Amino acid sequence: MRFDVLTIFPELFTSVLQEGILRRALQADQIAVNLHNIRDWTVDKHNMTDDRPFGGGEGMVMKPEPLASCLQDVQEGEQGRVVLLSPRGEQLNQKIVRRLAGHEKLVLVCGRYEGVDERFCRKYVDEELSIGDYILTGGELAAMVIVDSVTRMLPGVLGCADSAANDTFSRGLLKHGQYTRPRVFEGLAVPEVLLGGDHGKVYEYRFLESVRETLQRRPALLHSVEFSVAELRLLKKVGLFQQVQEAIKKNVH
Amino acid sequence: MRFDVLTIFPELFTSVLQEGILRRALQADQIAVNLHNIRDWTVDKHNMTDDRPFGGGEGMVMKPEPLASCLQDVQEGEQGRVVLLSPRGEQLNQKIVRRLAGHEKLVLVCGRYEGVDERFCRKYVDEELSIGDYILTGGELAAMVIVDSVTRMLPGVLGCADSAANDTFSRGLLKHGQYTRPRVFEGLAVPEVLLGGDHGKVYEYRFLESVRETLQRRPALLHSVEFSVAELRLLKKVGLFQQVQEAIKKNVH
Repeated sequence: MRFDVLTIFPELFTSVLQEGILRRALQADQIAVNLHNIRDWTVDKHNMTDDRPFGGGEGMVMKPEPLASCLQDVQEGEQGRVVLLSPRGEQLNQKIVRRLAGHEKLVLVCGRYEGVDERFCRKYVDEELSIGDYILTGGELAAMVIVDSVTRMLPGVLGCADSAANDTFSRGLLKHGQYTRPRVFEGLAVPEVLLGGDHGKVYEYRFLESVRETLQRRPALLHSVEFSVAELRLLKKVGLFQQVQEAIKKNVH
Repeated sequence: MRFDVLTIFPELFTSVLQEGILRRALQADQIAVNLHNIRDWTVDKHNMTDDRPFGGGEGMVMKPEPLASCLQDVQEGEQGRVVLLSPRGEQLNQKIVRRLAGHEKLVLVCGRYEGVDERFCRKYVDEELSIGDYILTGGELAAMVIVDSVTRMLPGVLGCADSAANDTFSRGLLKHGQYTRPRVFEGLAVPEVLLGGDHGKVYEYRFLESVRETLQRRPALLHSVEFSVAELRLLKKVGLFQQVQEAIKKNVH
């Protein structure tokens, strides 16, 4: 898979591409990340990538022409899907990450300042995405989040040891707590059931912990979880069934 | 403000601290970012920061003792608020960013792999935060998002030219489109009203564009917007009032 990133700060990406899974994926040619400095496509003598907004107001707006010229060069040959990182975009979630991972080529445009000229957005951008309801100094961190989250979904990138199938959100429940050695840490022991070796009991314990975490932290997520008959029986047995039902009802529009 | 980051990949942060607003804030001593390599607090001969989960299953769990030792050293002197970056945490939003910006010292713990030993979380972590409903290879990008979004809210960090008061989410509406030169770009003209110099008309145009963007992309946000009487009248005049009312009703639980 190929990522093309349009940014005025390509150097921001250096470190995150040199470590961990992204580095390994780059070395194994599972991904390519091409950084394009928008400034190289400016035509005025001051190499301006931004200008003041029509209608007044504070801040600067990213000019449409350098972005369009850069994009045209980047789209020579195979057409990639053009994603603008912007706080007004659709909120990224794991479902969108999986969809993006299905593309051969993603073009990530990093907005900055007061935003990108609206005409560029309408003419060239396939979708606007936001990584969350908060404001960053630029779209670069958001682009890194996309490169990172999408890359780990690509076939062969994660080893079995850190398989993506077992992730939080893979079935809509938050993850149960995890424990490793030592058996007792500062007076707190690992739950007995995890030491016993009864896989059925471990599964039940973790499932119920996941449900409890989700009920407590993010009850709205329960709405889209599919429970098996055995799981529903277990929820009834331990007295969680009604709470789950109520959380689901509350979040159906 | 001081950030202390606990991570097994401190090098990941190098580039983002060397550019733009974060670099300026560091140089002006408005922030300090201290990176701590958790591996330096391991005590076993292999310097292990992770180990297999009790109860079985794939992946590794971050060991509690190196994290606790590291944290104890980092908390010498002033106590910071301890935030664990984790997909099961509360979802970051601009309100939380503003709250975090009120702390003198934030300690950001970057989870990795299958998570952090639950006993460390319960004993040492003040809050768990997630930057969104997607999975990253580690909490490092999430920590960068927090450092970036919090820093730009600190007094004096942003110049007037990119004031935070005018941000998307500052009043709960998405931002209207922005336009800069040229007046005509690839056949698309800047809207007439933005060229006229009538500030009242510009304000109305932008306000209505914001409402339309929000209705189309994120109607659930309208629920928490406070409209002035003049704005409500304007919405009625252009026939948007009922749509806004319906969007609000739909999102009240």
